[in-house]
Amino acid sequence: MPVPLDRLSAVRIVLVATSHPGNIGASARAMHTMGVAHLVLVDPRRFPDPEAVALASGANSVLANARVMATLDEALAGCVLTVGLSARPREFAGRVLALRDAAAEAIAHCEHGDVALVFGTEMSGLSNDELARCNVVATIPANPDYASLNLAAAVQVAAYELRQAAGDTSVWRAPRFEPASFDEIESLYAHATRTLADMRFLSPQMPRRLLPRLRRLFARAALEREEVSILRGILARIDQIIDRR
Amino acid sequence: MPVPLDRLSAVRIVLVATSHPGNIGASARAMHTMGVAHLVLVDPRRFPDPEAVALASGANSVLANARVMATLDEALAGCVLTVGLSARPREFAGRVLALRDAAAEAIAHCEHGDVALVFGTEMSGLSNDELARCNVVATIPANPDYASLNLAAAVQVAAYELRQAAGDTSVWRAPRFEPASFDEIESLYAHATRTLADMRFLSPQMPRRLLPRLRRLFARAALEREEVSILRGILARIDQIIDRR
Repeated sequence: MPVPLDRLSAVRIVLVATSHPGNIGASARAMHTMGVAHLVLVDPRRFPDPEAVALASGANSVLANARVMATLDEALAGCVLTVGLSARPREFAGRVLALRDAAAEAIAHCEHGDVALVFGTEMSGLSNDELARCNVVATIPANPDYASLNLAAAVQVAAYELRQAAGDTSVWRAPRFEPASFDEIESLYAHATRTLADMRFLSPQMPRRLLPRLRRLFARAALEREEVSILRGILARIDQIIDRR
Repeated sequence: MPVPLDRLSAVRIVLVATSHPGNIGASARAMHTMGVAHLVLVDPRRFPDPEAVALASGANSVLANARVMATLDEALAGCVLTVGLSARPREFAGRVLALRDAAAEAIAHCEHGDVALVFGTEMSGLSNDELARCNVVATIPANPDYASLNLAAAVQVAAYELRQAAGDTSVWRAPRFEPASFDEIESLYAHATRTLADMRFLSPQMPRRLLPRLRRLFARAALEREEVSILRGILARIDQIIDRR
């Protein structure tokens, strides 16, 4: 089922002064898995770099279209909302939101223009000066004793929440087989009742507890036609064994 | 604010036949950031391994307490719910849930006993046979053209959703400064009204549109005492300049 994910195209992921090109590649991969395409690198230590390509693992379009800027201000130009990611308590005058709420706000702002999610360096995150350029801070609720998400892991969680906020709750469906009809299922219960009685497992006068439980179980399973055949085959085999005794 | 996160201690993360020890270490780090401690490795190609320690980046307790099992059945022993992660449509008879719903169900089941989240190999995920041992399948909604999350990235998102489901929406708070009092703020507005009139920017007879807008802006900002001083300082400086003309 298609979902309205257009708004993700207004999202920029901004990585500030990233040290390791592998983290840029892994972040590109994380973005691509969630359909977030626009990567902006502010003063990266090494880029382009073969290590970034290796870690991108096929998400080459994100790397190829990445823009490299000298300053954060250039990276944020034209944005109607800038969200800084920060795990640690800081001086920040604006609102600090849990990531899920920040993602909802970011997607809402995409109606009006571009939105940036800004990630600091691997070692120390965003500086207070960089954070001051953000309208909102987002924090990923985490283990207070060890809140150190890898950069690409943080990008993955943020991109995932953006995609969720943009409305994707799609799940794949297992291949559907032909469902059994009402009569087929009732015939199965009738057969099972006979066989269980023949097995002396079920008293025909006292089917009260067992049959409703079996009906409940199979109703929940939403039997397929082929499964009814299999179950009736098992019952028929039991019938044969009983007859032969 | 403390949150009821006890249920995370009933969660096992099960990695089946992992090829690269670095992915085991990165998964341990991802788990630790979300306070999920129990790692079970089924037939890993290399473990323990220095590369796992390097990528764990300090999450050593998770690695040290990891249990290694020969088979998936041993890894799942005692669990009241087993959730298999799978990105691709497969033969699976049970329910396929979006990760968020699966995490809620997993945390609900933690009341009754241990719960396992099961991740397959880096190359091909879980086999149909492994999936058949899961009560529920969870899928991470992703870009249909590129749904290939790195193993540790998938563990990060899953552990994050478990922590969210367990109730952690905590955000850090910026240091609070002393808020301005009602009188201080009203004195500021009175001062601003005088100065803006002196500047001939505001007609004292027609303050209707400007002042309400300013009041709205500053109300939203929740002025601090020191900020009121700064603003009044600016107004006083303007007063001086006007007086000198």
